[in-house]
Amino acid sequence: MASAMLKSRVRRPSYLNKLRKAEDLIDLFPHNSYIGWSGFTGVGYPKKIPSALAEHVEKNNLQGKLKYNLFVGASSGAETENRWARLNMIERRSPHQVGKEIAKGINNGNIKFFDKHLSMFPVDLMYGYYTKEKEKNKLDVTIVEASAITEDGGIIPGASVGASPELVQMADKIIIEVNTAAPSFEGLHDITMTDLPPNRKPYLIMAPEDRIGTPHIPVDPEKVIAIVESDYPDQTQPNAPEDDTSRAIASNLIEFLKHEVSHGRLPSNLLPIQSGIGNIANAVVGGLASGGAAFKHLKVWTEVLQDSFLDLFDSGHLDFATATSIRFSPDGFRRFYEGWDAYHSKLLLRSQQVSNSPEIIRRLGVIGMNTPVEVDIYAHANSTCVMGSRMLNGLGGSADFLRSSKYSIMHTPSTRPSKTDPTGVSCIVPMCTHVDQTEHDLDVVVTEQGLADVRGLSPRERARVIIKETAHPDYRPILQDYFDRAEFECLKKGWGHEPHLLFQAFDMHRNLQEKGTMKIEKWAS
Amino acid sequence: MASAMLKSRVRRPSYLNKLRKAEDLIDLFPHNSYIGWSGFTGVGYPKKIPSALAEHVEKNNLQGKLKYNLFVGASSGAETENRWARLNMIERRSPHQVGKEIAKGINNGNIKFFDKHLSMFPVDLMYGYYTKEKEKNKLDVTIVEASAITEDGGIIPGASVGASPELVQMADKIIIEVNTAAPSFEGLHDITMTDLPPNRKPYLIMAPEDRIGTPHIPVDPEKVIAIVESDYPDQTQPNAPEDDTSRAIASNLIEFLKHEVSHGRLPSNLLPIQSGIGNIANAVVGGLASGGAAFKHLKVWTEVLQDSFLDLFDSGHLDFATATSIRFSPDGFRRFYEGWDAYHSKLLLRSQQVSNSPEIIRRLGVIGMNTPVEVDIYAHANSTCVMGSRMLNGLGGSADFLRSSKYSIMHTPSTRPSKTDPTGVSCIVPMCTHVDQTEHDLDVVVTEQGLADVRGLSPRERARVIIKETAHPDYRPILQDYFDRAEFECLKKGWGHEPHLLFQAFDMHRNLQEKGTMKIEKWAS
Repeated sequence: MASAMLKSRVRRPSYLNKLRKAEDLIDLFPHNSYIGWSGFTGVGYPKKIPSALAEHVEKNNLQGKLKYNLFVGASSGAETENRWARLNMIERRSPHQVGKEIAKGINNGNIKFFDKHLSMFPVDLMYGYYTKEKEKNKLDVTIVEASAITEDGGIIPGASVGASPELVQMADKIIIEVNTAAPSFEGLHDITMTDLPPNRKPYLIMAPEDRIGTPHIPVDPEKVIAIVESDYPDQTQPNAPEDDTSRAIASNLIEFLKHEVSHGRLPSNLLPIQSGIGNIANAVVGGLASGGAAFKHLKVWTEVLQDSFLDLFDSGHLDFATATSIRFSPDGFRRFYEGWDAYHSKLLLRSQQVSNSPEIIRRLGVIGMNTPVEVDIYAHANSTCVMGSRMLNGLGGSADFLRSSKYSIMHTPSTRPSKTDPTGVSCIVPMCTHVDQTEHDLDVVVTEQGLADVRGLSPRERARVIIKETAHPDYRPILQDYFDRAEFECLKKGWGHEPHLLFQAFDMHRNLQEKGTMKIEKWAS
Repeated sequence: MASAMLKSRVRRPSYLNKLRKAEDLIDLFPHNSYIGWSGFTGVGYPKKIPSALAEHVEKNNLQGKLKYNLFVGASSGAETENRWARLNMIERRSPHQVGKEIAKGINNGNIKFFDKHLSMFPVDLMYGYYTKEKEKNKLDVTIVEASAITEDGGIIPGASVGASPELVQMADKIIIEVNTAAPSFEGLHDITMTDLPPNRKPYLIMAPEDRIGTPHIPVDPEKVIAIVESDYPDQTQPNAPEDDTSRAIASNLIEFLKHEVSHGRLPSNLLPIQSGIGNIANAVVGGLASGGAAFKHLKVWTEVLQDSFLDLFDSGHLDFATATSIRFSPDGFRRFYEGWDAYHSKLLLRSQQVSNSPEIIRRLGVIGMNTPVEVDIYAHANSTCVMGSRMLNGLGGSADFLRSSKYSIMHTPSTRPSKTDPTGVSCIVPMCTHVDQTEHDLDVVVTEQGLADVRGLSPRERARVIIKETAHPDYRPILQDYFDRAEFECLKKGWGHEPHLLFQAFDMHRNLQEKGTMKIEKWAS
C-alpha cells in the first residue's frame, strides 16, 4: 500500500499500481545484466534495489557469481556501489567512480572500468557503444531515483540529473525509486533528451540561466515496470576543509583573474565559473565570496556544486548557478532546504551532456578549474592514473572543461606527502606518467608557490615559467637540471621543440618508488 | 595603374586608389612586428609581400635581424614561409606549419612554435592570448589574399578561409593581395565572424550544406591600407599516391563501416566524413569512391579537401562537401576549374573555427579519421613529436575531430622504415612518447594488419585487441611480452587498471635510437 507521502509525490495514478518492494524485484537482475542507475557525485542514486541485491548476494553467498555491467553518470553512493564492489558484483563500469572498494576492484582486475568524458558517455551509450554485445543494443534495466512524478508519468529527479535522460532512453524496463525522505526538487531541473545524428540540434543556451528543456524526464509509462518507495536521503560526506595551501593557491588565482580584468580580457563580473570538488575548489569559491568589491554578479556554469557555493550565494555576489548535481554535505542540504525560497530561482540542474557540453562551455567562455595528479613542465596533466597505472576516480569532466574553456586552469599543491617525506611527491614532474590533458589544452598552472601563465608560449618557454613559478623550492633545481640537460641534448640533435630525455623522464617517479621521495640525487644514465 | 584584370576583380573603387607594389610596403613591417597571414594547408596565402620582405632581408643581409611573430591559420606556401624560416625571419609561429626549413628552425630553437587546436587558435587570438605583450592587444598588420573584392570592400577569399576572419578582426591595418592568376572563388564561401563571450551565439548548422554566414569577409574599408596585385597561383604539390599498405588500411576501415551500418549504428549513407591529407586518406576516399553499391549520397565535413574528393564527386556518390580549404594539386586545380559548374554547388568553404568546431562535429556525428606518429597499446596517440621531442607539423585539427567525432579513428601503417630496417619503427608502442589524443578519445585503431575496435573496453582489454589486431607480426610478441609483464607486476601491486612498467616503457624507442630498430632483444631492468 502506498503511503500518504508517496501518494503526494506520485501524480500519475497508474504508477501506484506498480508499487513493489525492492526485495521482490531481484529476479529482474540476472547475472551479467546491463544496468543503468541514476546518480552523479553521490547524489540522486537509487538506494533500495541496489541494497536489496547486495543483501541477496550476501545471504546466498553469490559473491563473484552475480555480476553486473553497471552504467551510472558518475559516482553513486558508498553504501550501494562501494558495497557492490566489495561483494564483487561489478563486472564492468563506466564512466566514473568514487569509493575505496571500487577503486580496489578496478586496480586488482576484478572490475573492467572504462573512464570517458562525462559529456560524451551518455551519447556514446545512445550510440550503442557500451551494449554492442546485447541483441537489442539496449540496457536491460534502468533504475532512476525520483523526488516526484508528474501527471504524465515523467520523472522529477532529486539532487542530480547526470545521465538519467539517456539511461532512460536506452532501456525498455524502467524502475523508479521515489525518494520521500528528501523534499521534492520540482522546478529545479531543465531536462533535454538526446537525439542522434543526423537529427541532433544545437543547445540554444546563451547564458547559465537559459532554459531549453522540460522540468522532468519524459518517460513512456508502459516502460515503467515498478516503482519503489525509498526512505533515506543521499549519504553524502562533509566537504574537505580549506587549509593554508589551498588558500594560497586560491589567492594566486584570484590575483590572476583581477589582472585579466584590468587588462580587458575579462569583464568585471568575470565569465561563468566552473569549479570542481575538493579543498582547492572550496578555497577558490570562498575567496570569490569574500573578495569584497572585486567581483560582483558572478555566474557559475559547472558540473557539481558543493557547500561553498551556498556561501557565495549568501554573499550576494552570485547571480546564478547551474550544474548537473548539487552535492552538499548533510549540513549543506539542511541549509539548502531551509533557504529554498532564496536559492531555487538562482539554480538549475541539467543533464551531464549539457552541463559538460563543449559546445556550451566554449560559447560561454567558461573559466575552468581542476585539480590534477601531476602536471609536467610542458603543461600536460595527469588526472587519473597514479604512476601511470593506478586508477583514482576517472577522468570525470576535467577534459570537457579544460579543452573548451576560455581559461583552462590546473590548480594543485606543488607537492604532496609521501609515506616518509612531507614533500616527497612533486606535483610538477618532467613528464606526466599518464596524460589526460595535453599541452594544447592548458592556459594556466597554479600552485601555492605561484602562477604560470603559459598562453601562447612555446614548450621551452613554458617549461621555464612552470618550473620557476609553480614548483616547490626543493624540486626547482631538480626540474631545472632535467630541463637544461634535455634542452642541451635535444637542440644538439636538432629535435629541440619539446626537449625530453626519454630514458630519465620518469626517474623522479622511480626514486619515489625505491626511496620514498622524488628528491632525486642522481639521474639514470 | 590597375590592370584590367585587377579592375574586374575589385568592385570597390576606393581600393584601387590604394594599389601599391609589394616592395614599397617594407616599412610597414619593422622588426618584431606581429603579423597575420591568410592561408591554410598551403593555399590562399599572401605571396607578394612575404616574398618582397624575404628579398629585402637577402639583399640587406638582415638574416636574424628582421624577425616576425607570425600567425597563420595553418601552413602557408613553401616559397614564403619556408623561405622566411631559411632566412631566420620567424621569431614566433602558431598554430601549425609545413616545410623542411620551418621544422628545422623550430627544432633547432630559432622559432618559438606553439601548436594549438586549429578550432581554438582563432578565438584564442581574439582573446588576446597571443598579443598579451602588445599595447593594444592587437596584431600590427594582417595580409589577406583575395580572389575578388565586393562593392562593400569585403574580401572574397581564394581556396582557403582558415583564420582570415579573425586575423582581419585583430588588426587595424589590413593589406589585401588580390590574386588575378587564379579564378575568382566567389560564391564558394560561407563566412562567420567571431563574437566574444558573453555574446557568442550557436552555430546553427545542422547539415554540411547549411549556410549561416556571408559570401565574403566583411572589412572596415578604412582599415585597408593597401592592395597589391598578386600574379601567380598557389604553389601546391602533387598528392601522395596510394600504395598497398594504404589500400589495405582503407579496406579494413571500409569493412568496419559496413559492419556498423549492418548493426544499425550508422545510416546507409554513413554520417559526414572527415578525412585528412596523405596517402591513407587518399586510399580511404578512393575506396569510398569505388565502393560501388555500398555507400551512396555521402557527405563530407572536413578540414581540407584533396584531389581524391574530386574522384568521389565524379563517382556520383558524394552529395556535398565542406571544409576550410581545398588543397588540390596543380592538376587537381585545373580539373576543378574546368568542372566548376558541376562542383561549385556541392562545395562550401568556412572558417577553420567552424570547419573544426567541436560543437558542429559532435552535433553532426562526424566520422573522424587521422594518421598519428604512433599509437600505444592503451589507445593514446602521438600526433606531433617524434621521440617525444622533435616537432613534425603540429597538432592541426586532429584533436578537434578525434575528441568530438562519433567515430574517432586513427589509421596508420603498423610499421615505418628506419634507416637500416624496413620495419624498424613500430607505430604501435607500449607508451606514446608524446600524447596528443588520449585513451578517452579514440574508438578505433586500424593498420594494414587489421582493426581494433576499442569502444567500451577497459585498458587491459584494449591492449589485448590492439596488439592482436593492429601490430606488425614482428612486434606482436614484443608488445605482448611488455603487456604481460606489466599486467603481472601491476596487478600484484594493486595498481593494475592500466598496467605499465614505467622504466621500460620507452625501451623500444631506446633500441631504435641505439640500434636502428625497435626490435628489442632485452628489456632494461
